[in-house]
Amino acid sequence: MFNRQTYELGSKRSCIRELFEYGIKQAAVVGAENVFDYSLGNPSVPAPPEVNQSIVDILSTESSLAVHGYTTAAGLPKTRAAIAEDLNERYGLSLRAENFFMTGGAAQAIISVLRALHLDEQTEILTPAPHFAEYRPFIEGTGNRYVRVPADTATFQINLSALEKLVSPHTQAVLINSPNNPSGAIYTRENLQGLAEILKQKAAEYGHPIYVISDEPYRELVYTGEQVPFVPSIYPDTIVCYSWSKSLSLPGERIGYFLVPDQVTDAAALYAATAGAARVLGHVCASSLMQRVIERCARVRPDVEQYKENRQLLYEALTEMGYTCVPPDGAFYLMVKAPDGDGQAFSDAAKAYNLLIVPTDDFGLPGYVRLSYCVSNDMIKRSLPAFKKLRQQYL
Amino acid sequence: MFNRQTYELGSKRSCIRELFEYGIKQAAVVGAENVFDYSLGNPSVPAPPEVNQSIVDILSTESSLAVHGYTTAAGLPKTRAAIAEDLNERYGLSLRAENFFMTGGAAQAIISVLRALHLDEQTEILTPAPHFAEYRPFIEGTGNRYVRVPADTATFQINLSALEKLVSPHTQAVLINSPNNPSGAIYTRENLQGLAEILKQKAAEYGHPIYVISDEPYRELVYTGEQVPFVPSIYPDTIVCYSWSKSLSLPGERIGYFLVPDQVTDAAALYAATAGAARVLGHVCASSLMQRVIERCARVRPDVEQYKENRQLLYEALTEMGYTCVPPDGAFYLMVKAPDGDGQAFSDAAKAYNLLIVPTDDFGLPGYVRLSYCVSNDMIKRSLPAFKKLRQQYL
Repeated sequence: MFNRQTYELGSKRSCIRELFEYGIKQAAVVGAENVFDYSLGNPSVPAPPEVNQSIVDILSTESSLAVHGYTTAAGLPKTRAAIAEDLNERYGLSLRAENFFMTGGAAQAIISVLRALHLDEQTEILTPAPHFAEYRPFIEGTGNRYVRVPADTATFQINLSALEKLVSPHTQAVLINSPNNPSGAIYTRENLQGLAEILKQKAAEYGHPIYVISDEPYRELVYTGEQVPFVPSIYPDTIVCYSWSKSLSLPGERIGYFLVPDQVTDAAALYAATAGAARVLGHVCASSLMQRVIERCARVRPDVEQYKENRQLLYEALTEMGYTCVPPDGAFYLMVKAPDGDGQAFSDAAKAYNLLIVPTDDFGLPGYVRLSYCVSNDMIKRSLPAFKKLRQQYL
Repeated sequence: MFNRQTYELGSKRSCIRELFEYGIKQAAVVGAENVFDYSLGNPSVPAPPEVNQSIVDILSTESSLAVHGYTTAAGLPKTRAAIAEDLNERYGLSLRAENFFMTGGAAQAIISVLRALHLDEQTEILTPAPHFAEYRPFIEGTGNRYVRVPADTATFQINLSALEKLVSPHTQAVLINSPNNPSGAIYTRENLQGLAEILKQKAAEYGHPIYVISDEPYRELVYTGEQVPFVPSIYPDTIVCYSWSKSLSLPGERIGYFLVPDQVTDAAALYAATAGAARVLGHVCASSLMQRVIERCARVRPDVEQYKENRQLLYEALTEMGYTCVPPDGAFYLMVKAPDGDGQAFSDAAKAYNLLIVPTDDFGLPGYVRLSYCVSNDMIKRSLPAFKKLRQQYL
């Protein structure tokens, strides 16, 4: 009676959500202070004060009709100009306001692009593992074929030789995410240049562009002191999808954009097709209030010190206990290898110690768990004895 | 290279948007005070003061992490409970918080339901004309077949005899909107009972439910002093889609819900399928700040006096000039018959007088124009000489 695909998506609980809800129940039994929840990527650093100051300022100085009224579908020109200006300064670019389209977060932006690129049942979207768990439903939900590029578990960079073999005449795009959820890896300039070379060659061979969709919500959450390479500067046919969920700690407000730089092949048509896709996905405009906040906060950067401390504490303590961890350069996730190679069993065993850690099977790479360290530093410290006991179980 | 459907949707300018942008250009030439823009359904009555008071209150009393953090996909339990309670009191129902799913406005809610009901290429969605112009892209964008039920231009109620002939074994739902955009008609209890009888009989005949999707953003914008019949109380298999865009003048904030009452056939499965659909449409959660505003403002009602005055002024003045108008009982639109039956030509002719009025062709009923009277009363008064001159052109 109902659409099978959406019924299954709506009925099957996500593993992350199940762990999170188990944690709430368990907290009622053993006390909240004894549950160590590493399941959710919900920022633990509050939004910078400029955000709420901007809201109060907007409400007290602008007319309610304007503040809460419709904007154009693409968004307020001033907001888009502020974003363009900020990126131009940081990366030496010449983006224009008209290259941007404000969306209700990165998910809506990515899905709009995937929908616009969908041609027929054979259309393929490649995505290098490990990848954000929602990519598969996003790709398949827009009618496209999900093609996983196996991980390079030595470096957690894009596995270029594996990718090269998977590109086909039906490949419309490669969906990447750096800094990466769940690995914390930042794709290097060299790695991205390798990707660019493969795609340019294949695009020439097949006679049509192959786009990169660069999902960048963690762009500003970096611990190495270096700037994340800006993908459109390396591969011209790149569409950027962005969200302020992590960088300004606004995940509940759903504010982001897609960016189609002028250099992109058929840029105007792709922008139009993506805007049209957004329309049939239910997009009318991004929150008019939040657009005004972003206009004022486009240059505000997150305070990553707390995440940095958490990362160091957790990585060092777990490594010292004998766990094998992937050293994260950005985002706020730590991947830990399941001692016996079974991530689901590792996650299940951890539950006995009230440690909530997510197996990475849905991230396209089994055998690991993901720990979100966007939690209090204190919780990490209190959780260490539990990790120690869990480790001993595997000796 | 791109999806043809979304490319066309993104490239073809909407008639409303074109008129609106023409108005901005024309204002630069003749002065804003000499352009009479009746094109957009953007409320002219500001949000009730409770809205901005709530925002300031929330920001000053709740933690930023909670206010701007993720909520569950379905939304905050307290928000949904407040909405249920309000509807239960007004309509004598026993809805529960769990029947509601908070969305980014009614568009997202409707599209999620349409996606959940999509079975195959033959799936049909009926919608009685005249209807909101976006219904056709919403229906076709979810892969369904758009089936227009011809209008009853004598009453602007649902044309039941026409509808009965169009229901087929592939009909999954009838999408209705009362108070209606563009006619302002409110479907009477008798009319809805007639619809219910037909659908019950056809559902029994075909052996599967036929749902009503009731799009109700204008539910509280009524000028007759009567309550709009609550559709689920008349036809059990009704899913309600709602938005506060018009009732709280928050169109830019994108906040609404879908409601699947327990009485609906396969309610739990339909709710799950619609939630899954929302997920692949890019829904993560509705704005966490706005959900908190709605929790506080669920009982706040719009001040319709200004719209009521506008309606009376415009209807009476145009009727006296010899125009044939459809008397509107709700919403903030007035349909006027094109004197020679050509709505597009009528709209074009009106432009010469800087009157921006929308032909209703895209609303499934040619031969009329739609006037949005959510404008200043003063603008209406100043526009009347232009309407008079336009009328004389047709004598």
